[in-house]
Amino acid sequence: MTSVNFKRIQLPNGLEIIGEVNPDARSAAVGFFVRTGARDEQPEIHGVSHFLEHMVFKGSERRSALDVNREFDEIGARYNAFTSEENTVFWGAVLPEYLPRLVDLLADMLRPSLRGDDFDMEKKVILEEIGMYQDQPTWTAYEAVMRQHFGPHPLGNSVLGTSDSVGSLARDQMKAYFDRRYVTSNILVAAAGKVDWPRFCELVTDACSTWPGGADPRDARPANGAGSVHVITQKKIQQEHVLLLAPAPPAESPDRFAADVLTTAVGDGGGSRLFWELVDPGLAETAELDYHEFNGAGTFMTYFGCDPDNLGENLARIRAIYAAVGADNIRPDELDQVKNKAAARIVLRSERPMGRLMPLGFNWIYRREYRTIDDDITTLQSVSRDDIARVLAAYPLDRVTTVAVGPLTDAEFRSKMAGVADS
Amino acid sequence: MTSVNFKRIQLPNGLEIIGEVNPDARSAAVGFFVRTGARDEQPEIHGVSHFLEHMVFKGSERRSALDVNREFDEIGARYNAFTSEENTVFWGAVLPEYLPRLVDLLADMLRPSLRGDDFDMEKKVILEEIGMYQDQPTWTAYEAVMRQHFGPHPLGNSVLGTSDSVGSLARDQMKAYFDRRYVTSNILVAAAGKVDWPRFCELVTDACSTWPGGADPRDARPANGAGSVHVITQKKIQQEHVLLLAPAPPAESPDRFAADVLTTAVGDGGGSRLFWELVDPGLAETAELDYHEFNGAGTFMTYFGCDPDNLGENLARIRAIYAAVGADNIRPDELDQVKNKAAARIVLRSERPMGRLMPLGFNWIYRREYRTIDDDITTLQSVSRDDIARVLAAYPLDRVTTVAVGPLTDAEFRSKMAGVADS
Repeated sequence: MTSVNFKRIQLPNGLEIIGEVNPDARSAAVGFFVRTGARDEQPEIHGVSHFLEHMVFKGSERRSALDVNREFDEIGARYNAFTSEENTVFWGAVLPEYLPRLVDLLADMLRPSLRGDDFDMEKKVILEEIGMYQDQPTWTAYEAVMRQHFGPHPLGNSVLGTSDSVGSLARDQMKAYFDRRYVTSNILVAAAGKVDWPRFCELVTDACSTWPGGADPRDARPANGAGSVHVITQKKIQQEHVLLLAPAPPAESPDRFAADVLTTAVGDGGGSRLFWELVDPGLAETAELDYHEFNGAGTFMTYFGCDPDNLGENLARIRAIYAAVGADNIRPDELDQVKNKAAARIVLRSERPMGRLMPLGFNWIYRREYRTIDDDITTLQSVSRDDIARVLAAYPLDRVTTVAVGPLTDAEFRSKMAGVADS
Repeated sequence: MTSVNFKRIQLPNGLEIIGEVNPDARSAAVGFFVRTGARDEQPEIHGVSHFLEHMVFKGSERRSALDVNREFDEIGARYNAFTSEENTVFWGAVLPEYLPRLVDLLADMLRPSLRGDDFDMEKKVILEEIGMYQDQPTWTAYEAVMRQHFGPHPLGNSVLGTSDSVGSLARDQMKAYFDRRYVTSNILVAAAGKVDWPRFCELVTDACSTWPGGADPRDARPANGAGSVHVITQKKIQQEHVLLLAPAPPAESPDRFAADVLTTAVGDGGGSRLFWELVDPGLAETAELDYHEFNGAGTFMTYFGCDPDNLGENLARIRAIYAAVGADNIRPDELDQVKNKAAARIVLRSERPMGRLMPLGFNWIYRREYRTIDDDITTLQSVSRDDIARVLAAYPLDRVTTVAVGPLTDAEFRSKMAGVADS
């Protein structure tokens, strides 16, 4: 078997660098994980994290936007970036010989110029993106259920922001946010695969040792949503899209593996109680339960989409499933089955450096923990029905905030929810 | 470095089994490659290959459609299937301990019951899929340009078939096609990754040794399209979608690596002459040149989509690029650059068993050849400008069949093509 090695150093300015070195790999992946996202934004700058992610690709003092694009192409990199409620991540994967150029490029990008003309042009792109997402009922439902569930807690913030907040954002506000959040204490540099570790550390040191330190810790007070029902009527769409959000273990909890096993058994898209009782009989197009983890909070998110005529039946079946699981737990055969499936997914996702990078980075960011693939599989295999019972007792699946987007009015939705209109 | 081993056996009934065994991998992938597709269909059964691919998931004598779905889920498989002009491929990837169950499942599926009620139900799904694809301008353009380019040659056949051909297809016609084409001489079983080779051969032998032999070789006479211009007017869409198809080296040609390097330099989506001269200045949304290989034929396919106002300018720029490349070849610096990019892609695609399966199977099907990742990189690095000049001499980029789908009428398109309307 391949032997991998975990490495870690910290630069004098506070920047942490970690690596999972695998001499047998044929590629190397690097990520700059910035511990900042929508939850770290004040109301007047909603959407700035995501907008800033775009601006990072527009160049630095040394590079224009064209240069950035051309250099990724020249080194044959696979690369991308994403922004969430809690993180902004920039990553690339290349052949080992191009690792120095990739590090130079990514590190330089992370000190963006934020040029005024690029800012104005990119603002239009973001506003179009917001418009496009607003046309997607599932996205509308996701943003609404997070807002309803978390209420005033900043985890309810929209990742994209609104047309208003982004439209009125000034370049200097973005610069102030960048200066405050993109400090070394909020950045982790991670590498996976065929990496010459001492050389890699040298490269990062050369590129990043002048980055400012200082702390801007997250407001990470715990959050738990309160149940409510919120209906957004969109007559022009055919299907009713429903999201149910319940509290779940936070990212810091040792129960996150049990939460994962539980949601896979109950709501995995490829075969689960929700699949066999809602999707397979044709009552719903999709019906899934997912577990999402955040600092100090977690969510069990149920999603289903269906013909409005089947709404009452689907809600009744979900309630029955969650009541049965709450009373009797999942069955031993379900537990075994789900462990097999989850183990296969861990391996199939992780077999190359690109696939190792995200678990490597996020385990460190959330828990300062290094875990091999085998660690994850061992922990997974040890999950017991008692562990799941503990999760269910603390976080019942049915304590939900409900949001629906679709053709039904508020009154129609509530009446079907009460089981009146389906008979 | 990892050491891989190539293996091959043939069963008495003619079925070939190949494997690339990698003891260091953590997963195993298996594919059943059936050498049959749209080009092997008579007009009255157009679409049968793709429809049959769907029916394979509907079960066998031993399994219902539900069983198939449930078993893939139980073994945590990642799996799928696809149909093209020349191949129908069924594959799955699992943890090594589930390889026996995956082989049993896939092999059993490959002897489908083709039950009448499943057939009738699935026909509706396929007809919906055809309708959905017909709404996509790029798909409409692809089918039309293949038909126009290949004329009466069966490579011009539609993979999906038409609503008419699929609508009137009978279950017995599918059964006859299955009996004729799914014989052992047209099937290759391939495995990649952590595979116990003797055990794997035993499993395949147990499952497949009763499969009928017999030969049904493909009508593989060479094909070369004749240039023509065909305009499909769709007033309701905004963009003009244009496909240009030129002959290129066939799958059997040693020049396919040179063809690949050429198209990457000229038309790669991430940075190339087409990208920098059409997409980057904002004249086209997309502009790419791809190389496709078939038995006895190949195509250089140019695609671009743009505002109709920019059509004339884009066509003029493409003509100028192709004329320049035809006269002066690509530059030495372009050649080096493209080799780096192509090498990176080969590695990044191939680093896990799932990624090795398709090159493994297709190299064998088309060329009875086993090639390691390093073989591909070595051949790629040896491509010279002379090789590219030879390809360009035999297959000029500008000998094209043209199809446009978009708001322009035939007369408008031709006038912009002639450069009249853009001034």
